[in-house]
Amino acid sequence: MLIESIPNVSEGRRPEIIAATAAAIGAVPGVRLLDYSSDPSHNRSVFTLVGDADGVERAVLALFERAVADIDLRVHSGEHPRLGAVDVVPFVPIEGVTMDACVALAKKVAAEVAARFSIPVYLYEEASSNPARKNLEDIRRGEFEGLAAKMTTPEWVPDFGPSAPHTSGGAAVIGARMPLIAYNINLATDRLDVAKKIAAAIRHSSGGYRFVKAMGVKLEQRGIVQVSMNLTNFEKTPIFRVFETVKREAARYGVAILESEIVGLVPSAALTSAAEFYLQLEGFKSGQVLENKLRLTTDD
Amino acid sequence: MLIESIPNVSEGRRPEIIAATAAAIGAVPGVRLLDYSSDPSHNRSVFTLVGDADGVERAVLALFERAVADIDLRVHSGEHPRLGAVDVVPFVPIEGVTMDACVALAKKVAAEVAARFSIPVYLYEEASSNPARKNLEDIRRGEFEGLAAKMTTPEWVPDFGPSAPHTSGGAAVIGARMPLIAYNINLATDRLDVAKKIAAAIRHSSGGYRFVKAMGVKLEQRGIVQVSMNLTNFEKTPIFRVFETVKREAARYGVAILESEIVGLVPSAALTSAAEFYLQLEGFKSGQVLENKLRLTTDD
Repeated sequence: MLIESIPNVSEGRRPEIIAATAAAIGAVPGVRLLDYSSDPSHNRSVFTLVGDADGVERAVLALFERAVADIDLRVHSGEHPRLGAVDVVPFVPIEGVTMDACVALAKKVAAEVAARFSIPVYLYEEASSNPARKNLEDIRRGEFEGLAAKMTTPEWVPDFGPSAPHTSGGAAVIGARMPLIAYNINLATDRLDVAKKIAAAIRHSSGGYRFVKAMGVKLEQRGIVQVSMNLTNFEKTPIFRVFETVKREAARYGVAILESEIVGLVPSAALTSAAEFYLQLEGFKSGQVLENKLRLTTDD
Repeated sequence: MLIESIPNVSEGRRPEIIAATAAAIGAVPGVRLLDYSSDPSHNRSVFTLVGDADGVERAVLALFERAVADIDLRVHSGEHPRLGAVDVVPFVPIEGVTMDACVALAKKVAAEVAARFSIPVYLYEEASSNPARKNLEDIRRGEFEGLAAKMTTPEWVPDFGPSAPHTSGGAAVIGARMPLIAYNINLATDRLDVAKKIAAAIRHSSGGYRFVKAMGVKLEQRGIVQVSMNLTNFEKTPIFRVFETVKREAARYGVAILESEIVGLVPSAALTSAAEFYLQLEGFKSGQVLENKLRLTTDD
């Protein structure tokens, strides 16, 4: 079983605090810290870790313990919006685990964080208890500075913990979601209007695919335009379908696709499904991928 | 570093011997036995194991030790051609290892087998010392029963070990090769001549791609035909190129591709390269696949 978690912590300027947090995660058995990076102007760090449910739970609690001790939001500033010392914690199903199990894990960790650190917790995305509190941006609106006032309204009673912010640690947002894929398609043209029209055609907000966020941008230095996307559920809105739709829409304007790119990490299954589609593979099972078989065997 | 080895052993009827051989492999640290299967009519078993160079070497030597003690080719019969108790041992580079390293490992294991068990060893495929002894079928021609006579000729002096067969164990063929992919494309027609013409167009032996073996066969029960292939080097002759060529050749006869299938295991990179091709992915690195990153981190 493999669950990914990507905690976002409101500290991006003091390397010793960030290193100590990374070390606390790394010390938890059954968990691997794949990556962490800090942005001083955001004053924020992002940790990417994977493990089984128990391991990931212990690692996130260890991270809360450090962050609550080290970070005081009353003296924190940075460009990125934030609500708490540990700002957001998503749990993401990677392999051999359902979304339901990740939702259950999010609720368990949320209850534990509230009980152990007296921090109010809002559940978000798939773990959300309330459609108005599904979206991270909605929960975070008003930030730490507006939180005490916001929490006096009945709509913002937290899912777990006290009904007022933690003095220095604010509140946390914990939930479950599918892996995000940052996917861009570059067009062989400098016509920004074409990229914007295609982005509008494929994104959910303007009538496109359910799990696509997209915008058209200009790559000034290269003299081309790009359809820049986040794919928020590659199982239900797969990469190949998005690619083929962009290709067809671009052809309508006499424009070809120059290339596409994946930024950062992508689950193997998202690429395998593209191979299955184009090669018309019948009856293919993920256990046929040598590396998957190997990993599954390791876990025995 | 990940090397696969697929030893073929001349015993497929005595389950206790096969189980003991599997147990001997499984007991070697740093090696995982992914799969093993026996064919009683062939009287032969195939073991699939992976590990680092040291682990795979120790596992193959442990397998030789069991097989040489347990199998006597003088009383062995079966439908599959064979030269020795341990008949063939290929080493296959999977990840973080070059073909040269697998060739070196094949030679090291061959020398060790010859020294420890007094078994003559022929090197084959990429490890071959001689173009006339590259192909397994050529080395195995005449089988165990013809081996003593064959070895008296200068062409068949072995690469390692005595210049006569081991009394009960015969000789072994050890080498290195790329992973094989068993890949079939089903055509939406019952015209066997079309499948045969396409097979001839794409296979190496009749002018096609360097690393394709292919034949046209009829799937009687489904009333369709199939181009049945072995892809012997998916890096140099990738799946997508074979698929697209078959599709184009079939169109020449007004025939469409119904579906394709991969039989057994396939390295992740073979599918990723198809996704890269069709999605026109630029600058994609295998380290961006989450599971690869995870596995590489594990190995640290």
